[in-house]
Amino acid sequence: MDFPNSVRLIEVGLRDGFQFESKVAPTELKLEIISELVQAGLKHLQIASFVNPKRVPQMADAEELLRRLPKHDGVVFSGLVLNTKGLERACRAGLESVEISISASDTHSRKNTGMALNEAILQGKDMIRRAKEYNMHITAGVQCAFGCVYEGNIAEERVLGILSEFMSIGIDRISIADTTGMAHPLSIKSLMKKLIPQIGGLPAALHLHDTRGLGLVNVMAAMECGIREFDCSLAGMGGCPFVAGAAGNIATEDTAYLMKTLNIETGIDIQKLGACSMKLEIFFEKRFPGKVCRLNIC
Amino acid sequence: MDFPNSVRLIEVGLRDGFQFESKVAPTELKLEIISELVQAGLKHLQIASFVNPKRVPQMADAEELLRRLPKHDGVVFSGLVLNTKGLERACRAGLESVEISISASDTHSRKNTGMALNEAILQGKDMIRRAKEYNMHITAGVQCAFGCVYEGNIAEERVLGILSEFMSIGIDRISIADTTGMAHPLSIKSLMKKLIPQIGGLPAALHLHDTRGLGLVNVMAAMECGIREFDCSLAGMGGCPFVAGAAGNIATEDTAYLMKTLNIETGIDIQKLGACSMKLEIFFEKRFPGKVCRLNIC
Repeated sequence: MDFPNSVRLIEVGLRDGFQFESKVAPTELKLEIISELVQAGLKHLQIASFVNPKRVPQMADAEELLRRLPKHDGVVFSGLVLNTKGLERACRAGLESVEISISASDTHSRKNTGMALNEAILQGKDMIRRAKEYNMHITAGVQCAFGCVYEGNIAEERVLGILSEFMSIGIDRISIADTTGMAHPLSIKSLMKKLIPQIGGLPAALHLHDTRGLGLVNVMAAMECGIREFDCSLAGMGGCPFVAGAAGNIATEDTAYLMKTLNIETGIDIQKLGACSMKLEIFFEKRFPGKVCRLNIC
Repeated sequence: MDFPNSVRLIEVGLRDGFQFESKVAPTELKLEIISELVQAGLKHLQIASFVNPKRVPQMADAEELLRRLPKHDGVVFSGLVLNTKGLERACRAGLESVEISISASDTHSRKNTGMALNEAILQGKDMIRRAKEYNMHITAGVQCAFGCVYEGNIAEERVLGILSEFMSIGIDRISIADTTGMAHPLSIKSLMKKLIPQIGGLPAALHLHDTRGLGLVNVMAAMECGIREFDCSLAGMGGCPFVAGAAGNIATEDTAYLMKTLNIETGIDIQKLGACSMKLEIFFEKRFPGKVCRLNIC
């Protein structure tokens, strides 16, 4: 195995985890958790999405959260946008690091955004152009990159084609999302072998869901291919709107623990992360799937 | 990666999973589940332990279960014994395949059985001698092989030494248990590299708990070392008496699904397994950690 000395774990729980919870977290709690996560050593947090507050009430305070967010040197706070309106809101709110994302599945795109894949690509390119004008740091992402519950397998060429379109405008980083948890070691390795030469050194993150229990196995496979950044969520919060009862992202503590056992540096204090997760289980009054957060072991 | 064409998954949920449940399952339900598991393609099931029925009421019907068990050609039904008294019970009940197991941790052994490690080894050897006289198929196991909550790391030499003692009497198969979920890819590979040459072709199974979320990652590491048999439990049932809130064994369906994605044959119908798991969640009135059993995907 050819493993790296260090990897970066990106906490996306405040966005991808929180958005599935019906109990709306006050901005105060979000700020408290963010502060504790920074104390725990996280260097990149996706903290909000600029989406329709009527559809996702949990994200309605995106502007307020950004306004009240203290500066932390060396820590990236990013936000997700899915359309031009969201991008404009994010820009006005002063967001410096934006994650622009479209689905590789035409059916998923139509159902989720009302746009066909071709339209979504055009809008994505337009968003990237504008974000560049606003001097934002741009991550361009592809959802459902390893499969779609409507379309089944997604052709690798489609994912690579979308990235190529986005790279032609100019982006700073890419993110590949296994939105439905359908990735597995062979599909990860197959796509990464084509993708990594194509992106020519651009930083690339993998966003994995643990829907079928293969989350950390997929992390291992991706690391072997050279991937060094992984989205995770506290205690594995989150879900999948297409698969009832399915799990959220890979749990940040469990991923950090895996890295620790492999002597791969993350800079993360697992004990402190676990304390955040336990606080969120109390607030949301539920048990999340993460395992290490329950143990006094690290 | 050098993966096998096929692996054998051993269902231990009826023993290691059920024993943690306070609601006692009637023998009728166990027989029904066993029949469904055989239908689903499982070829080896550990169905009972011959332990003190006052300490583990869930296993009190071991004799009745064996008496009422229909014959299934090509299917192994094994039982666990931890002391001579249990072995005699198992023999009288007509058990053909016995799993004899001691802990590699002196402290764990004293707390769990009242015997020091040296005494446990002597008793283990005595049990193996007797089981040979009874013409039983003998699996000899080592618990806490990758760590102990009391003693921390367990020296590899201790595990290898115990196996050597047992092999000197004559056994048919070995089983290495990560009772506390402390194994990780590096410790799996390190122990297996020493163990596999020592056992000289004897079949070897790994018994993994998913306490820290590394269960399937450890399966991958063990397969790379040549391990071809894995204990699993339906829906990841079970627990760890030393770690509150910890997870059980690796889930059978999730492990079978991983194998399917790697094109490794298990002979298992994942859909049928999942139906068993859902039935058990209803009976025990709780949600187990397994993921694939919740999805209509396989």
